[in-house]
Amino acid sequence: MPAENDATSIDLNSDLGESFGAWRLGDDAAMFALVSSANVACGFHAGDPVTMLASARLAAAHGVALGAHPGYRDLAGFGRRALDTSPAEIAAELLAQLGALDGVARAARTRVRYVKAHGALYHRLATDESAAHAFVEAVAAFDPALTVLGQPSGAIVRAADAAGLRYAREAFVDRGYVADGSLVPRGEPGAVVDDPAAASDRALEIAETGGITADDGSRVELGADSLCLHGDTPGAVAIARAVRAALEQAGFEIEAFA
Amino acid sequence: MPAENDATSIDLNSDLGESFGAWRLGDDAAMFALVSSANVACGFHAGDPVTMLASARLAAAHGVALGAHPGYRDLAGFGRRALDTSPAEIAAELLAQLGALDGVARAARTRVRYVKAHGALYHRLATDESAAHAFVEAVAAFDPALTVLGQPSGAIVRAADAAGLRYAREAFVDRGYVADGSLVPRGEPGAVVDDPAAASDRALEIAETGGITADDGSRVELGADSLCLHGDTPGAVAIARAVRAALEQAGFEIEAFA
Amino acid sequence: MPAENDATSIDLNSDLGESFGAWRLGDDAAMFALVSSANVACGFHAGDPVTMLASARLAAAHGVALGAHPGYRDLAGFGRRALDTSPAEIAAELLAQLGALDGVARAARTRVRYVKAHGALYHRLATDESAAHAFVEAVAAFDPALTVLGQPSGAIVRAADAAGLRYAREAFVDRGYVADGSLVPRGEPGAVVDDPAAASDRALEIAETGGITADDGSRVELGADSLCLHGDTPGAVAIARAVRAALEQAGFEIEAFA
Amino acid sequence: MPAENDATSIDLNSDLGESFGAWRLGDDAAMFALVSSANVACGFHAGDPVTMLASARLAAAHGVALGAHPGYRDLAGFGRRALDTSPAEIAAELLAQLGALDGVARAARTRVRYVKAHGALYHRLATDESAAHAFVEAVAAFDPALTVLGQPSGAIVRAADAAGLRYAREAFVDRGYVADGSLVPRGEPGAVVDDPAAASDRALEIAETGGITADDGSRVELGADSLCLHGDTPGAVAIARAVRAALEQAGFEIEAFA
Repeated sequence: MPAENDATSIDLNSDLGESFGAWRLGDDAAMFALVSSANVACGFHAGDPVTMLASARLAAAHGVALGAHPGYRDLAGFGRRALDTSPAEIAAELLAQLGALDGVARAARTRVRYVKAHGALYHRLATDESAAHAFVEAVAAFDPALTVLGQPSGAIVRAADAAGLRYAREAFVDRGYVADGSLVPRGEPGAVVDDPAAASDRALEIAETGGITADDGSRVELGADSLCLHGDTPGAVAIARAVRAALEQAGFEIEAFA
Repeated sequence: MPAENDATSIDLNSDLGESFGAWRLGDDAAMFALVSSANVACGFHAGDPVTMLASARLAAAHGVALGAHPGYRDLAGFGRRALDTSPAEIAAELLAQLGALDGVARAARTRVRYVKAHGALYHRLATDESAAHAFVEAVAAFDPALTVLGQPSGAIVRAADAAGLRYAREAFVDRGYVADGSLVPRGEPGAVVDDPAAASDRALEIAETGGITADDGSRVELGADSLCLHGDTPGAVAIARAVRAALEQAGFEIEAFA
Repeated sequence: MPAENDATSIDLNSDLGESFGAWRLGDDAAMFALVSSANVACGFHAGDPVTMLASARLAAAHGVALGAHPGYRDLAGFGRRALDTSPAEIAAELLAQLGALDGVARAARTRVRYVKAHGALYHRLATDESAAHAFVEAVAAFDPALTVLGQPSGAIVRAADAAGLRYAREAFVDRGYVADGSLVPRGEPGAVVDDPAAASDRALEIAETGGITADDGSRVELGADSLCLHGDTPGAVAIARAVRAALEQAGFEIEAFA
Repeated sequence: MPAENDATSIDLNSDLGESFGAWRLGDDAAMFALVSSANVACGFHAGDPVTMLASARLAAAHGVALGAHPGYRDLAGFGRRALDTSPAEIAAELLAQLGALDGVARAARTRVRYVKAHGALYHRLATDESAAHAFVEAVAAFDPALTVLGQPSGAIVRAADAAGLRYAREAFVDRGYVADGSLVPRGEPGAVVDDPAAASDRALEIAETGGITADDGSRVELGADSLCLHGDTPGAVAIARAVRAALEQAGFEIEAFA
């Protein structure tokens, strides 16, 4: 079932906690103060346990919903490369990642509220039905109260719905959309929106109408419950600040879906 | 506090689930049928998620208590090499490992009952007070109902007791003891007992008297709640079979402490 | 160019050195005595440096040609899962793996003579032209005297030939062939030949005629310079022994192509 | 034997190529233009193959001597945590790391000239004679023309000398020294020199006199052939720029020892 929608509230989510050991990625200090939901890496594509615990504590301190952000076991590729895992491997690795984040969350006196897949796994779950089924079954076995965050009309959202799990759909304020609801591929004109004002306008359009104007001028219905903000570049933080301010000024409450 | 002791029952524990990917280690099929408590690797020194899930299912199927067996993040060294982690790293890595095993356990419809450290971490926790404190605090934050399994009179047992956690003490049926309660170092005469009959005699002595005869003939009090059986050699399985049969014949019930 | 073919000699190759840390895989002691070429894992899918050095020493002691056996960076999947690496990643990872094995080989007073890709990378190089090109360019940059071992008529063999590298083609004595030269898929009848006598007959047929009878009775030309023997099961060692004995009895010299 | 010393030239070395996958560390673009010797991570504590190859190309493009910077197999700890490896493990891991960097260096049309251990391994080699011996034997087996860079009067320098290898000694321009030649421990007053002018003065003192004034005002003989510049903070780059400018203004040629 879809997450409960309130016409005057919207969620802002971002991938956070993606450092590893001595390596820092993204401006988590800035971003935890701007989002309502944090997708925290669980150790397989990023996120050592010390980073995971720090992220859970930041989520607790900022009243941000803690989400698990599981990925492929591929530190060198940051989980961005397709890896041909079996559904059984997807399920077992998801259980271990959900549990690992839940483990550190207990020490931060919070808990995992939702799950959003990362990188190449995220993309696979938009179309691979058996992978999406294995993923959703593992979520349900771990905690049926968790919400699954994914792309509107993706296989993962359908699988979650079929399994009786709550789901939420996200849209991207800094990416252009094609008429069929997919993203304009990177490298093509209009793929990336890096102007804070333009991104804010798009955020407002999605929050107010539930959809977005595609690159050909047509209307795309997204039914988005959450807006995804990127956090791993300085410019992205400026976009996040502008988007949050614009939404609040327009009367929206920034509120976690989970 | 110590685990509840029943004069007519004893626990048998073994390190299991130590395979990784294509690599098999130990005869888990044989050993899960012989033990009452299984120390299952959590992914840092051994145990990928698929192996962890299979181990949790074996524990559930055999009515064996599932224990977390966390180690240093050192696959190449199998967690046997001392690694100078900080107490904060010990705590965070323990939380992630406990959680990961708990995550797969949920899909196997069981749960983690106790925790026993592995390899070089196990040895460190016998003497390093600050490491033992960090470890025990993390266990308590994860689940205060967990039992900590360790060496009699080790720092870990004192720390668990001080934190109000239940603890259990283990003895080794296939290792010789020195009068001070430590093990005869490997390589010295009497270090290893590899005869099933001799190991069974030692198991009975410990189960019946709570102690063992040291290599100089003196008596060592161990207060053991559990006997540790090694499972990673064919000979060790024969020892495990003989020990279990001898204990049962003597009227002991093989029962988990947790 | 093809490796020099001598009608009365044939090479036997096997994947060896695939242990990792505490985990053993295959019967290297038996297999190094049976083969003329050893494909040794280079640390990415298997093979820690201590294992690699031991393998290089075994190769030197047995007069076996040392081959690099590079794979995807995927210990948990043993390099058997397709991983969408870029050509630039394939080249850089190959250079690092070739170098790592060459490094330990120097301490064993031998050197790397040839290279054969492992698992999912091996399969990709049979058809992916740009991956095969990147692979071959890296081999040439590392050492243009190396031979590339691959499937007959695969993209890798064509790329090696175009780059002026020597190549060798291998056939499998324990697998059935389809009329088009591909292997009968595992799980189908006739996919695996596990009888030593049958495998020996096939080895002789390939060595004597350069081809094999396909599952429909037609003739497949393989032009094989090397026969691949599997070494990771007890049964495979028996096959290897039978194959070597049959070839020697028929007058063939077991000799490395490189 | 010591590296050949020229009274009017000095080497500047820095740890570079310490990124890993998506994670960036240090300002390599700035630093490769300032140093004469680059200690490049070899994949065990940092440095994936793509990063290693890029670093080798930068070294070639800037005419900088390429040095191997091997560390413990500990990505999560960045090689900074003591790890109790055996001498045999130290040797095999060093050979694999030297070879891996040499492998990518060939594609960059350059080669490895020297080796400097990283982090906890560096510190161990200053005092652990058997580790230093194993390290040096592996260097000699790999390439007896390599220079070993280490701390003055460390075990590693003595072992290199005994093995007939060329060695070079380094000093730190941004760290305070105690009268016995050791560094003022971090956290104590005078441990770190972060003012570019002060660091430049110290660099000149070392280059001109071969020693430095200790924190108690006494004189420490260092016999330094190389000055180590840190590159992983913005402030460190400013120090590097100032040090290089000061040395050049004083008439020193910045020149690799190897």
